[in-house]
Amino acid sequence: MTTVNDILEFIESIAPKDLAMEWDNVGLLCGQSSKEVKKVLVALDPFTSVCEEAVKFGADLLLTHHPLIFQPLPAVTDKTTVGRAVMTLIKNDIAAINAHTNLDCADGGVNDTLADTLQLNNIQKIPTDADGLLRMGEVETQDLDAFLDRVEALLGCSGLRYVSGGKPVNKVAVGGGACGSELYAVIAAGCDTFVTADVKYNQFCDAKELGLNLIDAGHFATENPVVAVLAKKLQAQFPDLTVKISETHRDCVKYY
Amino acid sequence: MTTVNDILEFIESIAPKDLAMEWDNVGLLCGQSSKEVKKVLVALDPFTSVCEEAVKFGADLLLTHHPLIFQPLPAVTDKTTVGRAVMTLIKNDIAAINAHTNLDCADGGVNDTLADTLQLNNIQKIPTDADGLLRMGEVETQDLDAFLDRVEALLGCSGLRYVSGGKPVNKVAVGGGACGSELYAVIAAGCDTFVTADVKYNQFCDAKELGLNLIDAGHFATENPVVAVLAKKLQAQFPDLTVKISETHRDCVKYY
Amino acid sequence: MTTVNDILEFIESIAPKDLAMEWDNVGLLCGQSSKEVKKVLVALDPFTSVCEEAVKFGADLLLTHHPLIFQPLPAVTDKTTVGRAVMTLIKNDIAAINAHTNLDCADGGVNDTLADTLQLNNIQKIPTDADGLLRMGEVETQDLDAFLDRVEALLGCSGLRYVSGGKPVNKVAVGGGACGSELYAVIAAGCDTFVTADVKYNQFCDAKELGLNLIDAGHFATENPVVAVLAKKLQAQFPDLTVKISETHRDCVKYY
Amino acid sequence: MTTVNDILEFIESIAPKDLAMEWDNVGLLCGQSSKEVKKVLVALDPFTSVCEEAVKFGADLLLTHHPLIFQPLPAVTDKTTVGRAVMTLIKNDIAAINAHTNLDCADGGVNDTLADTLQLNNIQKIPTDADGLLRMGEVETQDLDAFLDRVEALLGCSGLRYVSGGKPVNKVAVGGGACGSELYAVIAAGCDTFVTADVKYNQFCDAKELGLNLIDAGHFATENPVVAVLAKKLQAQFPDLTVKISETHRDCVKYY
Amino acid sequence: MTTVNDILEFIESIAPKDLAMEWDNVGLLCGQSSKEVKKVLVALDPFTSVCEEAVKFGADLLLTHHPLIFQPLPAVTDKTTVGRAVMTLIKNDIAAINAHTNLDCADGGVNDTLADTLQLNNIQKIPTDADGLLRMGEVETQDLDAFLDRVEALLGCSGLRYVSGGKPVNKVAVGGGACGSELYAVIAAGCDTFVTADVKYNQFCDAKELGLNLIDAGHFATENPVVAVLAKKLQAQFPDLTVKISETHRDCVKYY
Amino acid sequence: MTTVNDILEFIESIAPKDLAMEWDNVGLLCGQSSKEVKKVLVALDPFTSVCEEAVKFGADLLLTHHPLIFQPLPAVTDKTTVGRAVMTLIKNDIAAINAHTNLDCADGGVNDTLADTLQLNNIQKIPTDADGLLRMGEVETQDLDAFLDRVEALLGCSGLRYVSGGKPVNKVAVGGGACGSELYAVIAAGCDTFVTADVKYNQFCDAKELGLNLIDAGHFATENPVVAVLAKKLQAQFPDLTVKISETHRDCVKYY
Repeated sequence: MTTVNDILEFIESIAPKDLAMEWDNVGLLCGQSSKEVKKVLVALDPFTSVCEEAVKFGADLLLTHHPLIFQPLPAVTDKTTVGRAVMTLIKNDIAAINAHTNLDCADGGVNDTLADTLQLNNIQKIPTDADGLLRMGEVETQDLDAFLDRVEALLGCSGLRYVSGGKPVNKVAVGGGACGSELYAVIAAGCDTFVTADVKYNQFCDAKELGLNLIDAGHFATENPVVAVLAKKLQAQFPDLTVKISETHRDCVKYY
Repeated sequence: MTTVNDILEFIESIAPKDLAMEWDNVGLLCGQSSKEVKKVLVALDPFTSVCEEAVKFGADLLLTHHPLIFQPLPAVTDKTTVGRAVMTLIKNDIAAINAHTNLDCADGGVNDTLADTLQLNNIQKIPTDADGLLRMGEVETQDLDAFLDRVEALLGCSGLRYVSGGKPVNKVAVGGGACGSELYAVIAAGCDTFVTADVKYNQFCDAKELGLNLIDAGHFATENPVVAVLAKKLQAQFPDLTVKISETHRDCVKYY
Repeated sequence: MTTVNDILEFIESIAPKDLAMEWDNVGLLCGQSSKEVKKVLVALDPFTSVCEEAVKFGADLLLTHHPLIFQPLPAVTDKTTVGRAVMTLIKNDIAAINAHTNLDCADGGVNDTLADTLQLNNIQKIPTDADGLLRMGEVETQDLDAFLDRVEALLGCSGLRYVSGGKPVNKVAVGGGACGSELYAVIAAGCDTFVTADVKYNQFCDAKELGLNLIDAGHFATENPVVAVLAKKLQAQFPDLTVKISETHRDCVKYY
Repeated sequence: MTTVNDILEFIESIAPKDLAMEWDNVGLLCGQSSKEVKKVLVALDPFTSVCEEAVKFGADLLLTHHPLIFQPLPAVTDKTTVGRAVMTLIKNDIAAINAHTNLDCADGGVNDTLADTLQLNNIQKIPTDADGLLRMGEVETQDLDAFLDRVEALLGCSGLRYVSGGKPVNKVAVGGGACGSELYAVIAAGCDTFVTADVKYNQFCDAKELGLNLIDAGHFATENPVVAVLAKKLQAQFPDLTVKISETHRDCVKYY
Repeated sequence: MTTVNDILEFIESIAPKDLAMEWDNVGLLCGQSSKEVKKVLVALDPFTSVCEEAVKFGADLLLTHHPLIFQPLPAVTDKTTVGRAVMTLIKNDIAAINAHTNLDCADGGVNDTLADTLQLNNIQKIPTDADGLLRMGEVETQDLDAFLDRVEALLGCSGLRYVSGGKPVNKVAVGGGACGSELYAVIAAGCDTFVTADVKYNQFCDAKELGLNLIDAGHFATENPVVAVLAKKLQAQFPDLTVKISETHRDCVKYY
Repeated sequence: MTTVNDILEFIESIAPKDLAMEWDNVGLLCGQSSKEVKKVLVALDPFTSVCEEAVKFGADLLLTHHPLIFQPLPAVTDKTTVGRAVMTLIKNDIAAINAHTNLDCADGGVNDTLADTLQLNNIQKIPTDADGLLRMGEVETQDLDAFLDRVEALLGCSGLRYVSGGKPVNKVAVGGGACGSELYAVIAAGCDTFVTADVKYNQFCDAKELGLNLIDAGHFATENPVVAVLAKKLQAQFPDLTVKISETHRDCVKYY
């Protein structure tokens, strides 16, 4: 018999808790740790629609990257989206486990997966304040347009935002999710190009002024590749489980 | 049809939210605000055993004085007593509403009820930092032993702790729950005797030195009288409801 | 003779200082207040390239929306982009004045201009914590695609990001720059659609779940319309000045 | 000749200062360090009545567990109980030394003495945040009533408050004074029973829910045994001193 | 009979407590409020030597400007100068009252007295953050050397430190004690000259650069004139008291 | 070619940055790090008058002890003395480097130079909270007047303030600038005499009571000796530079 707790321990073996940022909330955030698990739904986010998919699927556990609860809850009611999601899970006896910034930093986690997906070579960690967060690697020297094509194709983005730093692309840093504030560390590490998401105007402007190609490939597109990796590792470890990747969870953000 | 929300509005009409202390957590802390309510269980505390009684009773709502959630929850799991209580309620579709320090301070609330139960005359508010918290009133002048008898009989305590301030009892302050730190305000208001609970050693010692009769009649015994008052008011406002006072919730603290 | 100080007073008459957020830095941030001004360059940002344009133009004053200095400077050197900009201005005797969040909130400021540019009707303020920041107005009811067309055309965006809330567009909120965190106030005000910029992933996701059309039209595109308005007001007040809108300052962010 | 300072050094050798909590105030809190000491009064608390006993006894030093001054004094006047005690001591040339949380934690201190007094076997420290504070040990397995009898008899309590955790008593934790908040550490250490004081309602309720027998044996009764131990050690070290245990200091708290 | 408390009330009638700065400590800082007072020693400071003079004089009360206790005392021992002073007073049954920043600000207090002593005309308050602190007035226009002569003669200083702001003296600000940080308020009020004490190097340098004559006439010399005023008011109010000004308290600072 | 950066590196080799206090601001505070340097002006302070001397001298760099910018600047305008100094330097292409508390603490820095200038023997560091700040050494035992003569002569002070601790002078502590609050560390180190500056009234009074000769020899006089040392070291390292000590910067504080 595989329990919620068995899966929690496995997840924490591949994404150790002490890699998580101090402000983060990771692990078992909802449910009964002793419950038997037969079916697991894996998704990037525990949105209400994903929780409903878990119910339809008959899942015992929802495994996600982003946490179900971020700000601790003073109440669990239908007045908030988080409250509704928690109630849906509890009523249907579905536990929720997540690995967030610990999975970002872990070997083989979000950022290693992103670097792999972009087919970078000689992948290494970039020294940052939040150590182990970013990765960098190399591509054959190419102009920015060619690289933008590659990013869109490999990540399956429906659009991109970027500034050109005026340089060809060779040494590429990656940071899934919102890592724009790390652009100075990226430059200090000698990179010419940085792929991340949720980039703010002043970060784009600084990058241009400092000569860095900065690409916002989308939060979903840069992080979602880890979902398949996670599902695969889970299945390999627990062959008897039915592990399914969410079918309904798509990137909600569109380009026009 | 009476909804959870209708009852919340009524409770907040008799114990307005802005009377609550800043650190408190009051109102609808669990459940669906639009749900129809037919049965209500009323109790001092939302302990797991009380939640289970609510399930057996078929309650749609659990109404308590103490909050279900005090420290906001980073997770809702079986690893904590609060998590277990919240899960029990949600699985059984039972909402939870509470009125805590707002009910302490409200007219006709915890402390007015306590003063009434002790049959004090000329009941008035005592000026304190947490305004409106304490009440004082008068009894026929009597020695402390006679008054201890009265307290035990009227509150149904199975025991008491006290220090004698060396004075007969005439002007009595009351503060349900842990109000021992207010003893200076009580003395400043001219009282000779103070009935409260959860009194600490140094508060007992200070009271003795300052000549105040200080009686710790128990947290449960000093606050529980409001439960019946609350149940009665609720029933009067919503005659169609089945309102029941918890049968299982007794004072857990014993004297030896 | 028109001095830097005369222009500062005029700017503060149309964008009063006390409308600025507490964390903001507005007013005369560089230069000599008594200096005579003959030529003014107006731009959204005081980037190094804009400062160089001011030098070539022979400007005495650079008037911008965003502040030249945001974090107070422990040093003014060539090691930072801000230091380089400040040194360029001082060496060429060019003062720098800005109106930032005070211009966002001011009547006829950034957000009124944005609402006008989008041809909204019945323009009103939306109550928010940072009072006076957002505006809302109406358009003829239309589907989201039609409205996206309008936004792109009227603001001259080269691209957009958005989520559909599943509703037609009729009541539109606008907030130039990064106002995504105000989406709850926008919904509370009864709007179906919100045009702003620098929207983060979780804000897009929340909007979708809450049924709000949320459009990130770009920081530059949503704020730049105020530059022409500012230049025009300045010219009207000081007819002898040579007032020029920056020719080099374009949106650095591109879509792919 | 034995001076105040000699005694201070001895006390700090058996209860080292660095064992004290950061918020505590220990050591020489009143008087002349060079003064000769012939008579010492030892007591749990430096209350005014105890200070008066010291005067009558002709003491040169008052040695206590609780500090004479806890909150630093902005004034030394007759308007506060502490001010009166300090003035009484100074006028009569009596120094005051105390060992508080350093004595709680010290080997052979408050908690070792409490464990000894309760005749526990295999006494060990319990790991807690405030390291070294609690002790645990074993008794022959017995039901709770038998153990309550033992506690009352051995500590000489005039009453007790407790909750039953529904288990027989075998592995007992002790913490003199107000240690109720440590009940989670006590459970984690595998104890079934915890003897401490000043226990609050929610701590009693948590203990019951978590299956821990929790006994509030009184602040005085749990800490006072150390007074005799302290007096004995002092006398052994300084045979020429006249060391007396306070005769007037009794537990002020009564049970009814 | 005149008590310590009667004198406290009188002092607080001429220097109301709510004029004191938030960080200050004023009023009865030592002794018995009900004690009868026959002899009062008045001095600027409650130094040990002054306390000993009080003992010799047989004083019942020591009235000073500076507080006996500034940082609240965690202990009252011979290890600190304050502890020694407090013990000396208590052993000899001498109470201590002070009026510090409340007397600085009060009408007829430290700064009015200083302005009077310097024979300023048209004395007014200067608006400052710590409202009511400084005074300003006029002298016949004179060069700085002449004014330095006047200051030295009228205050009885044995030396002075100063910078010249390059202007003749006409409009003079005064602030007894350490008010150098108020020099910007002094300039804003239109003064050319500022007499205060404990002036720091950067304050002297700023004054010179800003064109203000800044004179450090000594902490003692600028504040001590109020002692005679205070003694006189006290004697007038309580004619039966023996009021004496300290004979031993002189300025300890010398010039070379 | 010698650049600003070359000189910065040299300065930081003799006064390492990590010796600076946490609140300090040291290093290159203004200008272009790559600029060639031919002429350097060295001074204690970067006052406006010194900046103007640097302009007249044709300096490329101003090297000072005190920082040009202390509080980080929200604006660089003519409304503040610092803003004017920064603008003067930038307009004339003069960089500004300083070594402040790092030079105080450095071997051969401010305090070693002060000790040397006073011809102390056996110079050692005094243990303090701000480690390495103070120095102490010995003189032939002499009375205080003789030592005051020596101080005035060797430092070229135009005046002194002091208190006598009632002891002859033999073991002397020195701390350039405002180190009066370190007097307890000085006494603990066994010194009888302390030479520093910007001493406050209560520090003088404490010194007298504690028996320490405390001499305020002026901020300028105690720190300025390091200027010549700094100039000499710089010239030795970079023989081709024209290094000049400021001729206009004199102590602004006068004695009367």
